[in-house]
Amino acid sequence: MTARVRDPREIRHWHEAVDVLVVGLGAAGAAAALEAARAGVDTLVLERAGGGGGTSAMSGGVLYLGGGTALQKACGFDDSPEEMFKYLMASCGESPDEAKLRLYCEGSVAHYEWVVAQGVPFKEVYYHGVSGEPPTDDGLVWSGSERVHPFHQIARPAPRGHVPQLPNQAGPLLMRKLVAAVESSAARIAANHRCVALVQEPDGRVVGAVAEVFGEERALRARRGVILTTGGFINNEEMIAAHQPLVSRCSFRVGAEGDDGSGIRLGIAAGADAIHMDASSISLPVTQPWGLKRGILVNAQGQRFINEDAYYGRLGEAALFHNGGHAWLVVDDEVFERPDYPRDIAAVGGSPAELERELALPPGSLESTLALYNRHAERGDDPVFHKLPEYVRPLVAPPFGAFDCTTERSLYAAFTLGGLRSDPDGRVLDPDGQPIPGLFAAGRATSGLSVGGYSSGLSLGDGTFFGRRAGRSAAARS
Amino acid sequence: MTARVRDPREIRHWHEAVDVLVVGLGAAGAAAALEAARAGVDTLVLERAGGGGGTSAMSGGVLYLGGGTALQKACGFDDSPEEMFKYLMASCGESPDEAKLRLYCEGSVAHYEWVVAQGVPFKEVYYHGVSGEPPTDDGLVWSGSERVHPFHQIARPAPRGHVPQLPNQAGPLLMRKLVAAVESSAARIAANHRCVALVQEPDGRVVGAVAEVFGEERALRARRGVILTTGGFINNEEMIAAHQPLVSRCSFRVGAEGDDGSGIRLGIAAGADAIHMDASSISLPVTQPWGLKRGILVNAQGQRFINEDAYYGRLGEAALFHNGGHAWLVVDDEVFERPDYPRDIAAVGGSPAELERELALPPGSLESTLALYNRHAERGDDPVFHKLPEYVRPLVAPPFGAFDCTTERSLYAAFTLGGLRSDPDGRVLDPDGQPIPGLFAAGRATSGLSVGGYSSGLSLGDGTFFGRRAGRSAAARS
Repeated sequence: MTARVRDPREIRHWHEAVDVLVVGLGAAGAAAALEAARAGVDTLVLERAGGGGGTSAMSGGVLYLGGGTALQKACGFDDSPEEMFKYLMASCGESPDEAKLRLYCEGSVAHYEWVVAQGVPFKEVYYHGVSGEPPTDDGLVWSGSERVHPFHQIARPAPRGHVPQLPNQAGPLLMRKLVAAVESSAARIAANHRCVALVQEPDGRVVGAVAEVFGEERALRARRGVILTTGGFINNEEMIAAHQPLVSRCSFRVGAEGDDGSGIRLGIAAGADAIHMDASSISLPVTQPWGLKRGILVNAQGQRFINEDAYYGRLGEAALFHNGGHAWLVVDDEVFERPDYPRDIAAVGGSPAELERELALPPGSLESTLALYNRHAERGDDPVFHKLPEYVRPLVAPPFGAFDCTTERSLYAAFTLGGLRSDPDGRVLDPDGQPIPGLFAAGRATSGLSVGGYSSGLSLGDGTFFGRRAGRSAAARS
Repeated sequence: MTARVRDPREIRHWHEAVDVLVVGLGAAGAAAALEAARAGVDTLVLERAGGGGGTSAMSGGVLYLGGGTALQKACGFDDSPEEMFKYLMASCGESPDEAKLRLYCEGSVAHYEWVVAQGVPFKEVYYHGVSGEPPTDDGLVWSGSERVHPFHQIARPAPRGHVPQLPNQAGPLLMRKLVAAVESSAARIAANHRCVALVQEPDGRVVGAVAEVFGEERALRARRGVILTTGGFINNEEMIAAHQPLVSRCSFRVGAEGDDGSGIRLGIAAGADAIHMDASSISLPVTQPWGLKRGILVNAQGQRFINEDAYYGRLGEAALFHNGGHAWLVVDDEVFERPDYPRDIAAVGGSPAELERELALPPGSLESTLALYNRHAERGDDPVFHKLPEYVRPLVAPPFGAFDCTTERSLYAAFTLGGLRSDPDGRVLDPDGQPIPGLFAAGRATSGLSVGGYSSGLSLGDGTFFGRRAGRSAAARS
């Protein structure tokens, strides 16, 4: 095998033996460690950085939860596990994991209670906006495409973005609380420990790991299991090139330095399967404030390609994966306003034709797109992409402008969604669907709930939810 | 490890010991076995079916070769490895394997001689058509997008489809000759032997395999190496769902029963990396005869999405991956003719507006697309998608018709392009790029030269070319 898998017979000295070894202290690792420790087994968490937090601490901190949580009720919203399930099945990509989605929706209300019980504060105020990073400290927000075509016809919409009480980016608060909970639990944390190999018996059982601590290797035995919660691979150029090369065009990689696929590679070297490795979350935040949804997004052919009121996670995927990252948001003088996220103005024109020339779009292409759009907009209709009437109005007031949404000159925020194949109990599976004994995983080291059409909060959501399940099943293994 | 990897200490009795064990007798396996045997080492080929051929024998038999082969010269075409390399680098998807492409282009002339030397006949006649399956027995054909936008501006075009002398589908002839060559070589063939596991030392060395023969297991030692040439995974529903779910919508899977990913799974279980697993060849043969390229392909929004003169491998990818398999080829009365591949007529209308209604396209969408297209077509221009002038003419003669190109009601031919990560010598690599000692692979069990924008002949081409290299490097290993 590779250096990433060691034969126990090679291990001369076990530095330490524990029941459950958790690799990585982001949201998934914290959840796994807490449940393992509370199950009464000796639990050690390895973190390669000087302290916990990982990518979760750099995030918006939003957890996608619903089904009728206390927070949803306090804010006066009705929701049910069934409506949440219908939305997620329809919006999470071509073939999401139905079994995991089902469990997630059914367990969501209780999972919110658990998060609160860890000391994470949520202000019981609804923020009237769509964002993965609301500017206020309000607790509940729309963080997906629930209210727009085609989803509002598939499932009854409800806001499901649960945001810890900190303005702008609540990730640091979420992780401060979760890490504090781990610190006050029976689980121990070993910082500056980089896991470099799994220890695997010839029969396939994973019985420990090797960590590098300031250049020195330490073998750590895990009697019940090793749980990989090491994050995704957005910071591994080679893996991006091998699985989803278009992502390398994105200006902003959402990931701590540790999101280099190390845990995914450890699992693969041990015989694990990795799935949906091409799936990524691509955010193109261009339609905030909301008024900008009244503009139209066009590609290099001057064509529209999506309903502009879709969540920015969907806009980014459509622009990057289906239009090569060539996109512009076209507005007229009445729609124009300063975007919440700074964005260049690619061109301005006194007429659609002039704007088209300035953008070097094919002659007549943008003109014809605008003519068709305006013709229906007169009646508040958008029969082509079904944008909601409230955002549909003719774009006729000169000057016309285009915000630059090309990958070359604008913000695309990307992170990976594919990873190790795992079952709902966090057991890592081989290509035949058989568990690799003793090996568990959760969070972005695994293929997530969402494998496309991203809604914010699903990664922290499934990371903590299935991280807890992985912690419990590893602890229960004898 | 899983049942797919066995510890040598579990093997009570070795049924047989050879130097090189080849798994699968398609084009790649035959090439690997021939080179290994000719290197003078004891070579055994396992084939799960009753005889050799595999998917290669069901194919068009086209080999994508060039750089100035004897056949290209005989047909009066100029080509160079550099022009071939430029075309393939530009057309083979987002991040093709440059090192493999370079070797392939530089070795292409000699590789053609080798194929001929195996007894495969090529008629030195150029067929004036674009196809992966020419209807005549002519030897040279266009099998890609060399002459169309944007490639004709990137590299000097030349036909590179080298077709064995058999009309319609030359795959059976190619494989009859290659299997006959193996039979008359020193290599031995064991039919009805299904490889169910690799035998791997705890240190990672692959030292043999276990084959199932009519329900009984036989352990086969391989002193120098095992070469996996088992094909792709188009016939494995679970793998398709996990890597490229859209492909499951395709009506026609191009693959022998054995293309179920068995070899890829064997490699993964042994710690190998698998890359570009979402890449697939999707053929939408709708623009034969050539006159139909004068029509326009539109999606569910009534928009064009590609230059219709692109090779059908590109048309299929654009229609399926970027437009959800919702596509129609719109023609007028003058362009209309019977397609070479039978295809339903989805609707007919006396005017674009009527056709639009019949197709249930958004009001005004097709009309506006046709108006813009015709406006430029008057001057033989297509500034939007750059279709060649010879195929650009206004579509104005009623009645207007639309050929059905939806996945629900038309032919999409699909096979997978991703697979085991291998180096140019056929060595299978782990996630860190380190070879797994003793394990080799070639053909569609590996990630191919093309990871998108398919040109016909690249799979038989890289399968035989890198199959030969794998055979030689396995034979040379001591």
